[in-house]
Amino acid sequence: MSDSIKYLLDESKIPKFWYNIAADLPVPLPPALHPGTQQPLGPDDLAPLFPLSLIQQEVSTEREIEIPEPVREIYRQWRPAPLFRARRLERVLDTPAKIYYKYEGVSPAGSHKPNTAVPQAFYNKEAGIKKLTTETGAGQWGSSLAFAGALFGIDVQVFMVRVSYDQKPYRRALMETYGARCIASPSNETQSGRTILAQRADHPGSLGIAISEAVELAAQRDDTKYALGSVLNHVLLHQTVVGIEAMQQMEMAGDYPDVIVACTGGGSNFGGIVFPFLGAQLRGGKKVRIVAIEPSACPSLTRGKYAYDFGDTAHLTPLTKMHTLGSTFTPPGFHAGGLRYHGMAPLVSHIKELGLIEARAYHQIACFEAGVQFARAEGILPAPEANHAVRGAIDEALKCKQEGVSRTILFNLCGHGHFDMQAYIDYFGGKLKDLDYDESELAMALAGLPSMRAA
Amino acid sequence: MSDSIKYLLDESKIPKFWYNIAADLPVPLPPALHPGTQQPLGPDDLAPLFPLSLIQQEVSTEREIEIPEPVREIYRQWRPAPLFRARRLERVLDTPAKIYYKYEGVSPAGSHKPNTAVPQAFYNKEAGIKKLTTETGAGQWGSSLAFAGALFGIDVQVFMVRVSYDQKPYRRALMETYGARCIASPSNETQSGRTILAQRADHPGSLGIAISEAVELAAQRDDTKYALGSVLNHVLLHQTVVGIEAMQQMEMAGDYPDVIVACTGGGSNFGGIVFPFLGAQLRGGKKVRIVAIEPSACPSLTRGKYAYDFGDTAHLTPLTKMHTLGSTFTPPGFHAGGLRYHGMAPLVSHIKELGLIEARAYHQIACFEAGVQFARAEGILPAPEANHAVRGAIDEALKCKQEGVSRTILFNLCGHGHFDMQAYIDYFGGKLKDLDYDESELAMALAGLPSMRAA
Repeated sequence: MSDSIKYLLDESKIPKFWYNIAADLPVPLPPALHPGTQQPLGPDDLAPLFPLSLIQQEVSTEREIEIPEPVREIYRQWRPAPLFRARRLERVLDTPAKIYYKYEGVSPAGSHKPNTAVPQAFYNKEAGIKKLTTETGAGQWGSSLAFAGALFGIDVQVFMVRVSYDQKPYRRALMETYGARCIASPSNETQSGRTILAQRADHPGSLGIAISEAVELAAQRDDTKYALGSVLNHVLLHQTVVGIEAMQQMEMAGDYPDVIVACTGGGSNFGGIVFPFLGAQLRGGKKVRIVAIEPSACPSLTRGKYAYDFGDTAHLTPLTKMHTLGSTFTPPGFHAGGLRYHGMAPLVSHIKELGLIEARAYHQIACFEAGVQFARAEGILPAPEANHAVRGAIDEALKCKQEGVSRTILFNLCGHGHFDMQAYIDYFGGKLKDLDYDESELAMALAGLPSMRAA
Repeated sequence: MSDSIKYLLDESKIPKFWYNIAADLPVPLPPALHPGTQQPLGPDDLAPLFPLSLIQQEVSTEREIEIPEPVREIYRQWRPAPLFRARRLERVLDTPAKIYYKYEGVSPAGSHKPNTAVPQAFYNKEAGIKKLTTETGAGQWGSSLAFAGALFGIDVQVFMVRVSYDQKPYRRALMETYGARCIASPSNETQSGRTILAQRADHPGSLGIAISEAVELAAQRDDTKYALGSVLNHVLLHQTVVGIEAMQQMEMAGDYPDVIVACTGGGSNFGGIVFPFLGAQLRGGKKVRIVAIEPSACPSLTRGKYAYDFGDTAHLTPLTKMHTLGSTFTPPGFHAGGLRYHGMAPLVSHIKELGLIEARAYHQIACFEAGVQFARAEGILPAPEANHAVRGAIDEALKCKQEGVSRTILFNLCGHGHFDMQAYIDYFGGKLKDLDYDESELAMALAGLPSMRAA
């Protein structure tokens, strides 16, 4: 019986550069637009929210962007992250497929999010910033920024979607242990929050609303900036450490993926593992099938419209072209809070439009089934978000079995589920439902997309 | 600014042998006795509970015991565990001390416990055993055995102390996700449990009672054995992978500890990190100060009696000579459930009697203060048990500062606190109290120690 195998890189193999896929795109990414003028944004438009170094990364087309040495030093606490060959899972599935997974739950916050939280805190510290505001859904991002803020001595204020704030007191406690301030959104601390609460005092909140609150607060003060945990180009850029390491580890294994699977909420763990492989393909390397897995209850890639839209509910952000369900869309309360966003990263949307990736939507019960099967075989209990990727990878492996062919499948296990045990309790207790979004609400949200003047 | 440093060993450095301190003890360990005859136990006396290979390890005086290759293969999932130089913490404390910590929270169950759960499951599987019973307090051990059982296809039944069962549904959910059956103790499934419940239907349970239940069930069936997560010689033996790795990592760092600190409940994480260093000292190597940190509310090493006692409440176990508060002693409900045991590992008790180690007791609030300080500096949130070691290490570092001397401090960070966030919430909410045991209860429990006939 051969056991599951870990491929662990030496520390010297922690990437020295992030990989910027903008350099290799066959068609350039449509620019972000100013919501008033509908003209491409200039750096000044973003200056109230981000330090210049991050704005430069947001629009850069350089292929390689150097990782500052202090960031690499902190990465060393948990990077290189291990890549595993899931031999035990392969045996349980009785599949000829080879299944590999990159495991990002080894970070102190338990997910891939610190990969970008640390450089964002670093660049803000360099720019003299004293405080960062942000939003969080399930809390993976909020706790990661809280962690990074503690390391650099930056105050962090997190607007946590009300429904998660109430359901996940332990994530909140983790943020507070790191020294961050965590408040339920919508809150009374911003105009955006007060407006929503005036309409409905018990509003459950949404990522779109929490973003509005965090952006509003950051824009008001010179020593305060805003940090986002997904969607933006520079965030996906930072996450490419995942894929760059995975490429080296697949080489150690003497293998190369035929299929890559990752879950998509805002798109950051997906971009992180996929872009380095896709970039190699675009530069003439081996073609890889790439599958994005999203929740059926919030299916931006499979059911959204590819259009310019706002990133938040109060329409304080720029317009970006992306797959969107409409900025007023509120998904039902399924358990993968990190995937409950109305839009998708412009970069991920763009490569979907170019036909470079596929997308598939799953209901949550099938994802938890896969997660439990994975935990019993491999010993790691995945986050509900990551269960979507596990489901996708298992289905690819079962297809191999059906077809009697062996393929190499790589997926990103973006985080552990230690803070999400209520979801597992609900699953075992038969209390989980396969939720669907409201079709008429989606139609209304899409009808409300900003009208664009002809270019 | 130099950052905290990780010392990571190559996989080939995962120990091939466990280290057995019995080989180097200046005075042999007093034997375990049969409770009826009070004569030293023979292997047959333990056969209903453990497979022969573990019984042999329990009484072995061989210095090195080979780790079976399938166990090493599974260890590879998370071993070698990292050792860190806590430079960020040193800066916060402004101490001339060098602080190193071995981090065992990287295992799938989040603590050092899988180091012994995996070999125990392996040897039982080899012996044809179909089911393992065990007890758990905070749940670290129960979830580790559940994990190991899943890997080897062995059914696991966990008796979880009632008060923890109610307080920690997430730990229970983790065990169930791994496929184990977890029931509250005292239960109606055993005579021991029913007897207790007849006296008091809402009994909060204790580790001593849960052990009685697990032992009773295992003794009844040929295909069922019992597994213990601490205290016994073979358990501490398996944990020496921690210290053997740490010795290699200290060598990588070009350093050697002046002081080693670890927390003690049953003694397994303490023995794991300490024994390899202590063994080297006993064979003529450098002398190391060794400090055991225990909770003031359950202070077996500092306030218990060194005497023969039972390991459980129903007196189903052999008699072992150890520091004990009496098998009927019920500690107050402080938050480090893994340290709420009336006894201490005979090996740890023995070296304490020989003057080879010191022991110190702390109240819980000071430990949580240390844990939060550690989390903000180093990014890792410790388990409440581990906070005792953090407190001890920080106090050693502050003493260095006071004395103006630099010493090298090594401590064992035996697990993360992701499943213990309620304790942090209580701490931040000011709801934590510094609990003390009841002096008259202790006196009564000690008065009830078994009377020993003269040898």
